[in-house]
Amino acid sequence: MTLRAKVSAGRLNGKMREKTLTMDTLNPQVKAVEYAVRGPIVIKAGEIEKYLEEGGTKPFSEVIKANIGDAHAMGQQPITFLRQVVALCTFPELMDSPSFPEDAKWRAQRILQGCGGHSLGSYSASPGVECIRKDIAAYIEQRDEGVPSDWENIYLTTGASDGIMTILRLLVSGKDSSRTGVMIPIPQYPLYSAAISEMDAVQVNYYLDEDNCWALDINELYRAYQAAKLHCQPRVICIINPGNPTGQVQSKKCIEEVLHFAYEENLFVMSDEVYQDNVYTPDCQFHSFKKVLYEMGPEYFNSVELASFHSSSKGYMGECGFRGGYMEVINMDPEVKAQLVKLLSVRLCPPLAGQAAMDVIVNPPQSDEHSYKQFHQEKSSVLGALADKAKLTEQILNAVPGIKCNPVQGAMYAFPRIFIPPKAVEEAKALGMQPDMFYCLRLLEETGICVVPGSGFGQKDGTHHFRMTILPSIEKLKVLLGKVRDFHISFLKEYSALE
Amino acid sequence: MTLRAKVSAGRLNGKMREKTLTMDTLNPQVKAVEYAVRGPIVIKAGEIEKYLEEGGTKPFSEVIKANIGDAHAMGQQPITFLRQVVALCTFPELMDSPSFPEDAKWRAQRILQGCGGHSLGSYSASPGVECIRKDIAAYIEQRDEGVPSDWENIYLTTGASDGIMTILRLLVSGKDSSRTGVMIPIPQYPLYSAAISEMDAVQVNYYLDEDNCWALDINELYRAYQAAKLHCQPRVICIINPGNPTGQVQSKKCIEEVLHFAYEENLFVMSDEVYQDNVYTPDCQFHSFKKVLYEMGPEYFNSVELASFHSSSKGYMGECGFRGGYMEVINMDPEVKAQLVKLLSVRLCPPLAGQAAMDVIVNPPQSDEHSYKQFHQEKSSVLGALADKAKLTEQILNAVPGIKCNPVQGAMYAFPRIFIPPKAVEEAKALGMQPDMFYCLRLLEETGICVVPGSGFGQKDGTHHFRMTILPSIEKLKVLLGKVRDFHISFLKEYSALE
Repeated sequence: MTLRAKVSAGRLNGKMREKTLTMDTLNPQVKAVEYAVRGPIVIKAGEIEKYLEEGGTKPFSEVIKANIGDAHAMGQQPITFLRQVVALCTFPELMDSPSFPEDAKWRAQRILQGCGGHSLGSYSASPGVECIRKDIAAYIEQRDEGVPSDWENIYLTTGASDGIMTILRLLVSGKDSSRTGVMIPIPQYPLYSAAISEMDAVQVNYYLDEDNCWALDINELYRAYQAAKLHCQPRVICIINPGNPTGQVQSKKCIEEVLHFAYEENLFVMSDEVYQDNVYTPDCQFHSFKKVLYEMGPEYFNSVELASFHSSSKGYMGECGFRGGYMEVINMDPEVKAQLVKLLSVRLCPPLAGQAAMDVIVNPPQSDEHSYKQFHQEKSSVLGALADKAKLTEQILNAVPGIKCNPVQGAMYAFPRIFIPPKAVEEAKALGMQPDMFYCLRLLEETGICVVPGSGFGQKDGTHHFRMTILPSIEKLKVLLGKVRDFHISFLKEYSALE
Repeated sequence: MTLRAKVSAGRLNGKMREKTLTMDTLNPQVKAVEYAVRGPIVIKAGEIEKYLEEGGTKPFSEVIKANIGDAHAMGQQPITFLRQVVALCTFPELMDSPSFPEDAKWRAQRILQGCGGHSLGSYSASPGVECIRKDIAAYIEQRDEGVPSDWENIYLTTGASDGIMTILRLLVSGKDSSRTGVMIPIPQYPLYSAAISEMDAVQVNYYLDEDNCWALDINELYRAYQAAKLHCQPRVICIINPGNPTGQVQSKKCIEEVLHFAYEENLFVMSDEVYQDNVYTPDCQFHSFKKVLYEMGPEYFNSVELASFHSSSKGYMGECGFRGGYMEVINMDPEVKAQLVKLLSVRLCPPLAGQAAMDVIVNPPQSDEHSYKQFHQEKSSVLGALADKAKLTEQILNAVPGIKCNPVQGAMYAFPRIFIPPKAVEEAKALGMQPDMFYCLRLLEETGICVVPGSGFGQKDGTHHFRMTILPSIEKLKVLLGKVRDFHISFLKEYSALE
C-alpha cells in the first residue's frame, strides 16, 4: 500500500487532526440564515422550562409559548373526523370496527385505493396521490366559485414551507443567485428571509402600511421594485394573505393591483394562503389570488405565473405535526414543470399521513353524511374561539399605554407596536442586542411568556414590535395579556417613560 | 398613481408578456439534477400503465415496477405492531379499545407524552421528540454492543434523504461550492449525484470493484482523492453500506481503512446505513461505522466527524410513506451543531407519524411482552423471504448468457452487468441514448418490466448494468426473472451476438 503510506507521511507529520467542519468552513449561506420563530428566545424559553421542571424557581410557574402557531400544543383538540380517517388509513383492520363511521371509512378506502399496495407505507408519486390531487382541484374550484382547477397543477408538499422553498429554488439561479431579487413583505414570516439567505438571493423589501392596518400599498411595491432594479433583477413577488405576522386580510382591489403589477413586470407570484380559513372580522373576506386573477380576464389568467400554497397546519385543524400541504401552480412553462417534478422526485414524496390529512380538509363531510354535524360543530367552535381571541387581544393590548395593536383580521397572531423608552434602547445596544429582543427576553425572564421580537420579522427602522399567537385558551390568554400589560407598564416606569 | 403609470408606459409598449420562468431562466443547477430511480423510464412505465388501464393492449397485462425499493407497493404487509402504535397515537380514543394490545398502548402513551398538547398534530422540537431521540440512542448503544450514544447527537429526519441533503448543505460552501469535493461510490444511489448537482459541488467518484463483489478498495479511494485534489478540496466521503445499488456488505477491515483514510485526510464521513437490517448471506455481517470507529481507539473516536443515516423505509418494515428517519452526528463542532439546529428549524420538524414509526423500530416488543411473538414472526418472515429472493435473483440471472450478477449480500437490489452487443450500442447512440437506457426501454416495452439503467447510478465506461429490486413476491419474481432471461436472449439474437 505504497500510495497510502505516501499520503500518510505527507499529511500527518506531527500535526494535530483538525475538524473539517468548523464555523470557518461552514457554508456561509447557512450561517446567514435566521429563523426567529425558533430562535434564541425560544431556546432560552426551553432552558427555563427545564429549569422549572427540575425544581428551580422563577416568578412564574410555567412558560407560555406564544411564539409559534402550534394550535394543539396550546390545547386545541384535533378534528375527530380527520383523525378517524388517518387512523383508518394507518391501520385498515379498523375498517371492521363499528366505532368508526362509514363516511370516514369510505374516505380512507378511497385514499388507500390510490396508494401503492393499498398501503400508507408506500411511496406516492412525487407530486402526491392522484385522487388526493383531484380532490384538491375540486375543492379549489368550489372555493373559487367555478374557476377551473387542473389536478395536474396540484403538488402535495411537506407542509407549505417545503413548497415555498422548492419554487424559490427553481427561480433563484445558482451562480447568478446574487442577481435574483425576491420581493417580500416587511414584516414577513421569516421562512422567506431564511430561504433567501440560504440561496444567496437578494431580499427586496416592500413595507406594509402599519398606519393602514398593515395594508399593502401598491405605490410601495413600485418604489421597492424600482430601487431593487438598480442592483438586481426582481423575478418573484411573495405575498402572505392573510398576513403573518401582521394579521391583515387583503382587499380584492389590492390583490388586483398586485397581479397587474406582476403582469407588467414579468414577476412570478407566490401567494402564501395558509391562513385562508382564518378570517375573523365581519367586514373582511378571503379572496384567493387565483380567483382574482381569473376575474381580471384571460389576458391575465392565461399568462401570470402563480403558485399558491396551503397547509394542514393552520386553519381550524392545526395539524402541524402531519406536515401536510399543497401548492397549485398555474401558467408554468411545461418544460419547467417537468423539471419541477424531477426536483421533487429526488426527495421521493411528501409524507402519506399528511397527504391523507389534506384530503380530509378538502373533502370534509357533506350535509347528508353522518359526521357532518360533529365536524361542523368542531370547526366552528375553533374558528369562533379564534375570532373572540383576536378581538380580545386587540382590545387588551390597545388599553396599555405605549402599545398599539392593529386589528387581527385574520391568521393567528397579533403584532403590536411597542414603545421602548430611549434608555432601554441604549441599554439594549450596550448589550449588542436589538431593543425588542431585549424587551422580549425581559418579558420571558419576568413572566414566563415567550413571544418573538419584531426584528425577527423585519420592521421599519426605529419601530419595535413583537409577535404573539392568539392560540392559548381564552382564560390563559387573558392571564397572558394581563401579564404583558403589567410587565409593559413596569418596564416603562423602570426606564422613566411613565411618571 | 404617477409612478405606476410611468412604469407601465416604459414596460408594456406593445410587447407581449413573456414568462418569467423558462428553461433559459431556470436555475441551471436544477437543470443539472438527474434522478434515474424516478427518471424517464419510470415516466414511460406510468404512461404504459395508464394505456393498459384504458383498455390498450401490449404483449403483457401489467407493468411490474422493479425500479424503486418500495416494499408495500410490491405487496409486503406492514408490521402490525408498528401500525398499531401509530394508529393509537393518531386517534388516542383507541386507547380504550380492547383490540389493541397493552404494549402498543404504553408505547403510544409515551410518545404522546413527549408531544406538545399530547398530540401528533403539534410541531416537535426541530431535532425531533425528545423521548424518541433517547430511544434511538439506547437502540444504537445496544446495536453497537455498548458503544456510547448521546441522544443529543440524534436528529430525526424526513426520510434519510432529508438528513443527507442537510449535512451536505453544511459542508458545501455557497459561492465556493465548485471547490468542494464530495467523494461518492460509483455505482451510487443517485440522491448523492442529484444533491451534488443541486449544490454545484464537485462529484469525486471512487469506483467499487465489480470483480470483487463490489468491494471498496482503499487504494482506489486514495487514487480518487489525489486526482481530485488537483482541482478541488475533497471535504466529505459518502459510503453506502450495505450498498445501493450494488448490494455488497462491507467488511470490518474495509471500514477501518476508510475511517483511517478519513482521519488522515480530514474528511467528514457520511455513512448511509439505511439497509443495516438487510443482510442476507451468512458470511456477511453489518458493522456500523460508529462501532468500528470506537474500536479503533480514542484518537479516532474522539476526532473523526461522522454522520450516520437510518430510515423507516427499508429494513423489514418498508414504511417509505411515513418519511421517517434519523441521523446520528458525532464529533461535530458544537457551534456548527447550533447552526445545524437552526437550519433544521426553518423547516420546523419532521413528520410526527414518521417519528412515531421510527420509535417502534428502535423500541420493538421485548420477549416478555404480548406482541413479541407476532412482531418477530412478521419480521423474520420478511427478512427470510428477502434472503431467498436475493439468492434466487443471483442464480437465475447468472444462468443467462451475457448477464453476470454479483451476490446480493444485502440491501434490496440486484445490479447485474449486461452484455450489450456492439450493434445495439450503435443503434442506441444513433438515437442519442445510453445503451443501457435503450436496453431498459426495450425491456419495458416488450415485457412490462421496469428497471433502471446502470447509467443512472454511474458505472465504469464501457460497462452496462441495470438495477432491479428483489421485492416482488417469490412467484412474481420468478416470472419477472424468466421474462428478463427470455428478453435478453432474444435481444442478443436480434443484434447477432448469439448464433
